[in-house]
Amino acid sequence: MLILGGTATNGIDQRLSERTGYRLLKVEHKVFHDGESYIRIPAKVEGEDVIVVQSTYPPQDKHLMELFLMVEALKDLKASRVVTVVPYLAYSRQDRRFRDGEAVSIKTVLNLLRYSGADSLVVVEPHKPEELHYFRGEVRVVDPMPVVAREVMRVVRDPLVVAPDRGALDRARRLASYLDAKYTYMEKERDRITGEVRVKELPRESVQGKEVVLVDDIVSTGSTMAMASKSLLSLGAKRVIGVVIHSLTTGDVISKLREAGLEEFLCTNTVPSEAERIVDVSDQIVSKL
Amino acid sequence: MLILGGTATNGIDQRLSERTGYRLLKVEHKVFHDGESYIRIPAKVEGEDVIVVQSTYPPQDKHLMELFLMVEALKDLKASRVVTVVPYLAYSRQDRRFRDGEAVSIKTVLNLLRYSGADSLVVVEPHKPEELHYFRGEVRVVDPMPVVAREVMRVVRDPLVVAPDRGALDRARRLASYLDAKYTYMEKERDRITGEVRVKELPRESVQGKEVVLVDDIVSTGSTMAMASKSLLSLGAKRVIGVVIHSLTTGDVISKLREAGLEEFLCTNTVPSEAERIVDVSDQIVSKL
Repeated sequence: MLILGGTATNGIDQRLSERTGYRLLKVEHKVFHDGESYIRIPAKVEGEDVIVVQSTYPPQDKHLMELFLMVEALKDLKASRVVTVVPYLAYSRQDRRFRDGEAVSIKTVLNLLRYSGADSLVVVEPHKPEELHYFRGEVRVVDPMPVVAREVMRVVRDPLVVAPDRGALDRARRLASYLDAKYTYMEKERDRITGEVRVKELPRESVQGKEVVLVDDIVSTGSTMAMASKSLLSLGAKRVIGVVIHSLTTGDVISKLREAGLEEFLCTNTVPSEAERIVDVSDQIVSKL
Repeated sequence: MLILGGTATNGIDQRLSERTGYRLLKVEHKVFHDGESYIRIPAKVEGEDVIVVQSTYPPQDKHLMELFLMVEALKDLKASRVVTVVPYLAYSRQDRRFRDGEAVSIKTVLNLLRYSGADSLVVVEPHKPEELHYFRGEVRVVDPMPVVAREVMRVVRDPLVVAPDRGALDRARRLASYLDAKYTYMEKERDRITGEVRVKELPRESVQGKEVVLVDDIVSTGSTMAMASKSLLSLGAKRVIGVVIHSLTTGDVISKLREAGLEEFLCTNTVPSEAERIVDVSDQIVSKL
């Protein structure tokens, strides 16, 4: 068994190698002047089982293409089995046709990954676990909540876990179970055309004086989380902590979240982040290899 | 028959529609804040034959992913046949393993396009026509040289066509045949590691006093063409004209070519360009539909 560290690993390849003892091979890569990627596997892989580590954070399309190139090259070079560890899986929010005629992007991404030659797919906290059925190979889902909960417990004592929308409810339930805490969710309405988001207020008595842990899988613009944070604080929450598995934020967004009253912002290392508290999910991934 | 104008057409979709009379549909698309693309086919395509027009100039990976998303969406929406017109095909220079372990990128790109659901592929001046066999569907190659030759004849009278390396020799031969001119090639050596390029001089008597038309398929950094131009002028060429099918140059590169003595720089509209002479290849594409 070999680990191939891809072009977007955020150090997870190295950690997996240290924890498993499997040899780490770093892919040789560069980007040509015109923007095309170059990929080379710098060792013999014939007959080997290879674990490719490649997250697909921005620029998503480049990191995806590089993943496809690596997987097909490994199969061409006669690797026997290719396991793809994709800590953050891009395009996972487009998992169905919200309007007629839309591309179901995650279906295309997972089909292409399979066609490239991937036998197995390991994803940390997919947007919806059921969407992974589009990958017609073996799928393993990594639950980061146990290690996330451990970090959250360093910050709060008696939390209320809140999902900022109904879609994150299962997520809130899982985190709450590890924290032995209560959980609830806020109603969110997103206008599919303008993208504008509104949250409905929770009952004041359920929030007042509480240490709220807002949990979501992905933060990009931070609008939902900022809005939820303001609403919770206005209802008398004692403090609000943000927990996000995949943080696609820039420094600007983290400032915006701070301004919205978020006291701490915690995410994992599936995506490089400027957040102050970053939870390493490598052990959780190892348990699925 | 319908034409679907993709996210990177440089106006060719519109022109194909005007010339064929097929209805033009523009794909609905946007790029989300985090960098993911959104694709929507804004009409019923069930039972229709659809020609998708999508060039894959920079950013190549984004334009490729958008192409895959469009093609799979069309097939999902039950389009009957999908013809993909890809005026400029990215990754075509990585058509074999120059060193052990390299990804054969064009193979992956063409496999993925086929797997997405493309039945047929139309490419203008591929880097090597034989590499298109990686696409396991119908392939049609568009030769732009007849219209390019027509434009060249406005600029020069008695040209000598020169390929800046051996790989472009067939290209020079084709252009020369339409110009009823002689042709030759320069020996180029590219160091695969440093990327450094050198050209060997041609015999002085073959160049002296000649109007030289330097022809290549792709210009990116412009180094090869600049070097060839300087060499030809130092050997006494009367003037040097640059002809490139797919110009991936920026304004900087065009200035660099001017400084190397290139008198005119002519390219086609497969890629958006700041060049002063741009040849429209739409009629040539129409003849292959």
